[in-house]
Amino acid sequence: MHIGLFDSGVGGLTVLREIKKVLPQAQFTYLGDTARLPYGNKAPVTLRQYTTENIQFLDSLNVDVIVIACHSASSVALDLNSSAQGTPIFNVIGPSCVEALNQTHNKRIGILATKATTKSGVYSRYINDLDSKAQVFSQQAPLLVPLVEEDYGDEEVTQIILKSYLTPLLRQDVDTIVLGCTHYPILMHQISQLCGSQVTLIDPARSVAESLAPLMKEPSQEAGEMNIYLTDHAPHFLEHAAQLLNSSRPLLALKPLGPTAK
Amino acid sequence: MHIGLFDSGVGGLTVLREIKKVLPQAQFTYLGDTARLPYGNKAPVTLRQYTTENIQFLDSLNVDVIVIACHSASSVALDLNSSAQGTPIFNVIGPSCVEALNQTHNKRIGILATKATTKSGVYSRYINDLDSKAQVFSQQAPLLVPLVEEDYGDEEVTQIILKSYLTPLLRQDVDTIVLGCTHYPILMHQISQLCGSQVTLIDPARSVAESLAPLMKEPSQEAGEMNIYLTDHAPHFLEHAAQLLNSSRPLLALKPLGPTAK
Repeated sequence: MHIGLFDSGVGGLTVLREIKKVLPQAQFTYLGDTARLPYGNKAPVTLRQYTTENIQFLDSLNVDVIVIACHSASSVALDLNSSAQGTPIFNVIGPSCVEALNQTHNKRIGILATKATTKSGVYSRYINDLDSKAQVFSQQAPLLVPLVEEDYGDEEVTQIILKSYLTPLLRQDVDTIVLGCTHYPILMHQISQLCGSQVTLIDPARSVAESLAPLMKEPSQEAGEMNIYLTDHAPHFLEHAAQLLNSSRPLLALKPLGPTAK
Repeated sequence: MHIGLFDSGVGGLTVLREIKKVLPQAQFTYLGDTARLPYGNKAPVTLRQYTTENIQFLDSLNVDVIVIACHSASSVALDLNSSAQGTPIFNVIGPSCVEALNQTHNKRIGILATKATTKSGVYSRYINDLDSKAQVFSQQAPLLVPLVEEDYGDEEVTQIILKSYLTPLLRQDVDTIVLGCTHYPILMHQISQLCGSQVTLIDPARSVAESLAPLMKEPSQEAGEMNIYLTDHAPHFLEHAAQLLNSSRPLLALKPLGPTAK
């Protein structure tokens, strides 16, 4: 099986990593739209266009499944269940909502997300469509992406900023928090320490990976092959990717597409 | 006189503000390439293409002068002195280098800039072309743009991060620091407090404004008119703009161009 994923930058690699754990024999193609990153502060109409273009590109490679490995892009494309070629499309929002409802006891769910995702109100709508009694509390966390990208996870400032984002959610007595951006699971340990063991953290990457598992019918002949396409030259992407995917061998083919790539 | 400026977001408005002080009767057109912001972490080849497209757009409006109101874009376009139509092009790097050399006593100059600008080495080259004895010390400050955009200027974390960026420069005994990104002058007060009065801070917006002054031949009939074009819908841009330009009247026409605007 050939799985195509896209995100604006490295964040979506956390989704790839989790899918690879569940489907180690799948072939992967990852598109990083680095020329237009980040997606988290772009307008819905713009994100919708970028998403459509990225899906068309993955479609052109004849992948078997497309995963929108970005919450901001997922939030404007929940209605896209299949591509123009009929390829099934998965997003990172639906499966994490189902998982949050499975985990919560008091039906009070917190969402930590980018501005774009928070403003879309997509998590509240999706969760309340599944369970109208659940209460959803959303918190914008716009500085977490730059802090992760600058490798500031263990710095004091990240602790201070995380605390300011998490306190309003914890005051609402949530027992489950969805890490609603692909970058956030990189701060899982720090968030977990601030929230304590009574709060369950949902990593949407793991949720979408589990929802893909039933699709795997037979091992691919090209098991484990991985291709990465980028829309901008990003010299540190490969390094980040190898680190995130915990890969010691050079299994990545870097193919800059140029900023006008469709 | 009709002055066209561009930047990826609101940052370049600090340049517009300074030029407006020097040339209050000029007409202004500002292009914010919000669909592809930020520029500070994009590759040179990509930035060069965005810059060329933005210049073409301003050329199509028949402006009299084009100002690249962004350091990252300026750093890849120092050779562009005029557009295809022959319109003179100014950048924010040249004038600030001249000003830094005018101000320094010990010829030790610090540059605070984005990754793209720092990596380009453009400040060192430009300053050393003017004075081979000057020593230039560069410091990347990648978190300042998101902190400014999130209005975190007065927060403790900004203080901590600023200190970590400025300390290496101060250790080099610089007596002049160029604020090499249009967002940074918004933190002028905080930076000044950390550096002390013995360090002169150079705001490139002011330097480029002063270099434009001699161009003003006659007052424009449409004095003070201002148009803003954006490549993405950015609901808070107008608010930011009014605040930055200290304008109490609605003098801005917001015209989203869509993400594929050329």
